[in-house]
Amino acid sequence: MTNGEKIYNIAAELFPIPRSLTGKGVRQTFEILKKYAKDLNVFEIPTGTKVFDWTVPEEWEINDAYIEDESGRKIIDFKENNLHVMGYSTPVDEWTDLEGLLKYVYTEPSAPDAIPYITSYYKRRFGFCMSENLKNSLKPGKYHMYIDSRLFEGSLSYGEIVIPGEIEDEILFTTYVCHPSMANNECSGPSVAIALANHIQNLPSHKYTYRFVFGPETIGSVAYICTHFKHLKEHVKAAFNLSCVGDDRVYSMLHSRYANTFADKALLNILKYHTKSLIEYSYLDRGSDERQYNAPGVDIPMVTFSRSRYTQYPEYHTSLDNMDLVSPAGFEGSFEVLTKLVDALENNAYYKINVLCEPQLGKRGLYPSISRRGQYDAVMMITNFIAYSDGTNDLFDISNIVGVPVDELIKIKNELMENGILDIVG
Amino acid sequence: MTNGEKIYNIAAELFPIPRSLTGKGVRQTFEILKKYAKDLNVFEIPTGTKVFDWTVPEEWEINDAYIEDESGRKIIDFKENNLHVMGYSTPVDEWTDLEGLLKYVYTEPSAPDAIPYITSYYKRRFGFCMSENLKNSLKPGKYHMYIDSRLFEGSLSYGEIVIPGEIEDEILFTTYVCHPSMANNECSGPSVAIALANHIQNLPSHKYTYRFVFGPETIGSVAYICTHFKHLKEHVKAAFNLSCVGDDRVYSMLHSRYANTFADKALLNILKYHTKSLIEYSYLDRGSDERQYNAPGVDIPMVTFSRSRYTQYPEYHTSLDNMDLVSPAGFEGSFEVLTKLVDALENNAYYKINVLCEPQLGKRGLYPSISRRGQYDAVMMITNFIAYSDGTNDLFDISNIVGVPVDELIKIKNELMENGILDIVG
Amino acid sequence: MTNGEKIYNIAAELFPIPRSLTGKGVRQTFEILKKYAKDLNVFEIPTGTKVFDWTVPEEWEINDAYIEDESGRKIIDFKENNLHVMGYSTPVDEWTDLEGLLKYVYTEPSAPDAIPYITSYYKRRFGFCMSENLKNSLKPGKYHMYIDSRLFEGSLSYGEIVIPGEIEDEILFTTYVCHPSMANNECSGPSVAIALANHIQNLPSHKYTYRFVFGPETIGSVAYICTHFKHLKEHVKAAFNLSCVGDDRVYSMLHSRYANTFADKALLNILKYHTKSLIEYSYLDRGSDERQYNAPGVDIPMVTFSRSRYTQYPEYHTSLDNMDLVSPAGFEGSFEVLTKLVDALENNAYYKINVLCEPQLGKRGLYPSISRRGQYDAVMMITNFIAYSDGTNDLFDISNIVGVPVDELIKIKNELMENGILDIVG
Repeated sequence: MTNGEKIYNIAAELFPIPRSLTGKGVRQTFEILKKYAKDLNVFEIPTGTKVFDWTVPEEWEINDAYIEDESGRKIIDFKENNLHVMGYSTPVDEWTDLEGLLKYVYTEPSAPDAIPYITSYYKRRFGFCMSENLKNSLKPGKYHMYIDSRLFEGSLSYGEIVIPGEIEDEILFTTYVCHPSMANNECSGPSVAIALANHIQNLPSHKYTYRFVFGPETIGSVAYICTHFKHLKEHVKAAFNLSCVGDDRVYSMLHSRYANTFADKALLNILKYHTKSLIEYSYLDRGSDERQYNAPGVDIPMVTFSRSRYTQYPEYHTSLDNMDLVSPAGFEGSFEVLTKLVDALENNAYYKINVLCEPQLGKRGLYPSISRRGQYDAVMMITNFIAYSDGTNDLFDISNIVGVPVDELIKIKNELMENGILDIVG
Repeated sequence: MTNGEKIYNIAAELFPIPRSLTGKGVRQTFEILKKYAKDLNVFEIPTGTKVFDWTVPEEWEINDAYIEDESGRKIIDFKENNLHVMGYSTPVDEWTDLEGLLKYVYTEPSAPDAIPYITSYYKRRFGFCMSENLKNSLKPGKYHMYIDSRLFEGSLSYGEIVIPGEIEDEILFTTYVCHPSMANNECSGPSVAIALANHIQNLPSHKYTYRFVFGPETIGSVAYICTHFKHLKEHVKAAFNLSCVGDDRVYSMLHSRYANTFADKALLNILKYHTKSLIEYSYLDRGSDERQYNAPGVDIPMVTFSRSRYTQYPEYHTSLDNMDLVSPAGFEGSFEVLTKLVDALENNAYYKINVLCEPQLGKRGLYPSISRRGQYDAVMMITNFIAYSDGTNDLFDISNIVGVPVDELIKIKNELMENGILDIVG
Repeated sequence: MTNGEKIYNIAAELFPIPRSLTGKGVRQTFEILKKYAKDLNVFEIPTGTKVFDWTVPEEWEINDAYIEDESGRKIIDFKENNLHVMGYSTPVDEWTDLEGLLKYVYTEPSAPDAIPYITSYYKRRFGFCMSENLKNSLKPGKYHMYIDSRLFEGSLSYGEIVIPGEIEDEILFTTYVCHPSMANNECSGPSVAIALANHIQNLPSHKYTYRFVFGPETIGSVAYICTHFKHLKEHVKAAFNLSCVGDDRVYSMLHSRYANTFADKALLNILKYHTKSLIEYSYLDRGSDERQYNAPGVDIPMVTFSRSRYTQYPEYHTSLDNMDLVSPAGFEGSFEVLTKLVDALENNAYYKINVLCEPQLGKRGLYPSISRRGQYDAVMMITNFIAYSDGTNDLFDISNIVGVPVDELIKIKNELMENGILDIVG
């Protein structure tokens, strides 16, 4: 089974769970993830806890919800698709007429077959979501609006995997677990993150400590940053948010506030050599947890990695974002990018050649012994690496200058270090 | 009456006055301006005063001038158009033949109907200006060259309006009063400056002190800078030269020496959102008083604001630059730009959000309570403002980054400050 | 006789000599050069001397070489073209069959009429070079491979001309003397260097000390830098490698490692105004002695000046790179660029106008006394020079900003200094 297939299967297992900001769905999600990553720890933050400018909201529990007509036929049923209920809906059990019903019905006219995904986290109300076509087919009559939900003092859950490395400097990966049944814009992130965590745990050794954080978008990040602020500020060298990493259309990255951090440099370099279908988004296009990590004063250098980025694909935030939209190939591509990124980060340093003038490569078997027209090209990759190994460039910088991917440079770097003519600086 | 109409009327009143570097015409001009701006003070610098590398020249007085033919018919008459005499002409009262006359006649062949504007400030000579067509129609015969002028130890006049603000930091506006009857390249600048001074005086309050300087081009600026050097260097934060601000064709700005001062940033930002017909000129294209203020060692950050810039329109420095070339609409546009500029400067500061992570806009009524696809755009302007309110950007910087004009940002800034989550830095 | 013709004649005299890294050919070359530059001193570094990561190789002597067939007919003969023997070939005196012979035969199939230039400096082997067409015409039979050469403990020769100036700061020119009979990629460099040295020696005075270094490529530079490291680091302000400067097709320059040194700025400026057929090469395209001078830790700011750059013209490293490829016109162009460069360097400084505001040019005869439309352009070159003479720009910077070649600016600079209003800064 390929890595892409394995990840697809995890995502498929996560898909049906009725997640929201808080509650049972999130905890069920963590139970599934724990099967694949034993070191995943789950924490709870009680309702009412102040986290910076925010307050942890009440927990939402939903058991059932439907609209039935006079004949007892269920028009929509939460058990069939959990998008049918507006997230954080208050309970209701009322009969009304069609006009009364429609005040509480939400559709997405631009995708008339799809059920939209809609929430009202911070204002108490209830609502039902259905396709525009279904709404248009409803006939006058009596309708029973039923939502068996409750909001109560509970807690917000988040998960964390920390994989200690040789040093305390950390690479942070975040993803979210708060959307109900959506494949790309929900299940893809945690599934890829779990596979990447497993990959790192299986490495013979690694320099960096890796931290994976899973929580609800926005409030989860705010809460996590608030409760880990000093640690994150001191240790995190680069952070990557994983969002919509399961389809196989394009590759995307969303830059940090000024597009100038180490995280920007690293991911952009990997993606440029990995794909020709790269879309770079400015921070002005942000919309996921990078908003909290890059906020003024927080300034943890985070970029977001996506295949088709949130808001930019037609199925976004509707029931069409399902398991057909994502694919093993899509996951495989994301996983490759991230493992290449980890490999580059692990090998990355500022390098300096320790002989003056060019080293004599010939005596080390690194140079063709006959000098003739055309022969130079083969060795140019090595001499270019040496030329820019002046202590001011890391592997990403050198790669950008000389036009060779980091994984190729790592081989050269290893050869030169084995020959004792290249040092790590600083 | 619109602001544009009011300004047009001032310009029309200034138009007929025979101005030059010095003398009665300049003083008549100041008398007119004083009617509209009671705080205008006029100062005199005596002939012979050393001002940096220059010396204040003799004062020029002209009472009458004409060329008449043998029949006593006046070919040209200073009383009909004061461009007919070369500026600073020495007196003459001689009969000559056509050949002799033509040695002293200047025309502009590229605009054969127009009288060119020509001066000889620093070398003593006399001359007459006429249209190319008129010159070509002259027949052999005797001609009487008559100029009743004198050059004498007098003084150079300049005007000044200072409007004290809450702080001593100053915004400087300069314009010139040395051209005779030309509308865009003379009367427009003082008229708009007077209107802007009145606008500022009528503001309920303002932070900056505003200084308006009116003098002859070049020697007037040199003299003003020389006599106010220490004060200008200590207080002026941004300076704007107003030249050719009355026509309604395009908007132009001429940058400072390296195009990198606060004045460049401020005016460019305002103009970019105000008009699509903006022409940016390099300092290499300079030609007005910005030459003195930006000179090495002076380095007062000045840019020049124009509609059609000097030298760049066909009527420039000819009798065709008359009151038909300028218009109320042209003046209105200039006035709008300058009042927007003042408003932006008054509100400008480096701002910093004082909560970590994004503030919760919802609880302050600044965020839609239902989160659904498409809703985010409306709030993005606020969150973008917050994202870049990190203490390193002023309003112009934020406007440039987020693509929203400063006047829109001022509203957001005010809301956030009222909510207590935004501070001024430094 | 033009300079180009004189240089062509020196190159023609150098052409037939069988040069290599070391040995008699190099010393014969120096004997010829000494005829034209009496101050050329030649030095020897013994075989086995360690120079940084390298070791000075054994000296190579070759007296004769040929391939003859059974009938005694010489198929190729070193005496006819010294490219026929691989550089640094070990001796051989053997009969073999055609198949055996071809193991030692090198051709350039892309130029089937040309003899390729091939060496094996650091691995002991022998070989013959011939045209692809000749090789294809060889018939089965016995062949006599004969090379009368020897490798022995000798020395590596290099030449040096030092022309002391008023200051100890140095401008360095390097070129190489290690290729046998090739015109552009060998004889052109030393010939132009000698002419330039003569030109400088004949100047009435000069500020900089000029150093010319002639040695074998790569090992010669490594050895020279190693034995002169401290001196070069302390004194060399800009360095120029001369390579392939004899043809008349284009002009080329190859930038330093980051294209940001004074040498880059100076040569690029001169070339931009000299020619429209300039090709700028990145340091990634390097291949000559700039590799050693710009190496990390050495960091002597060197750019390479060429007409058609090495590797970029079809005759490169073959017998087609002969005296027909270069021309007096080609040499003349190179010589002009280099003498303009020297003149610019000699006049270069950071200048500062010593009056505040614009100086009054009129009283110094530098400004037209009648001010009228169109007259300003003539004086703009002077005022632009003054505007950017603020102590932060040297002549090359000002030239780049104002769009006027340095030789024009030198005239203005001289006028302003004679008028006492321009100072040299620092």
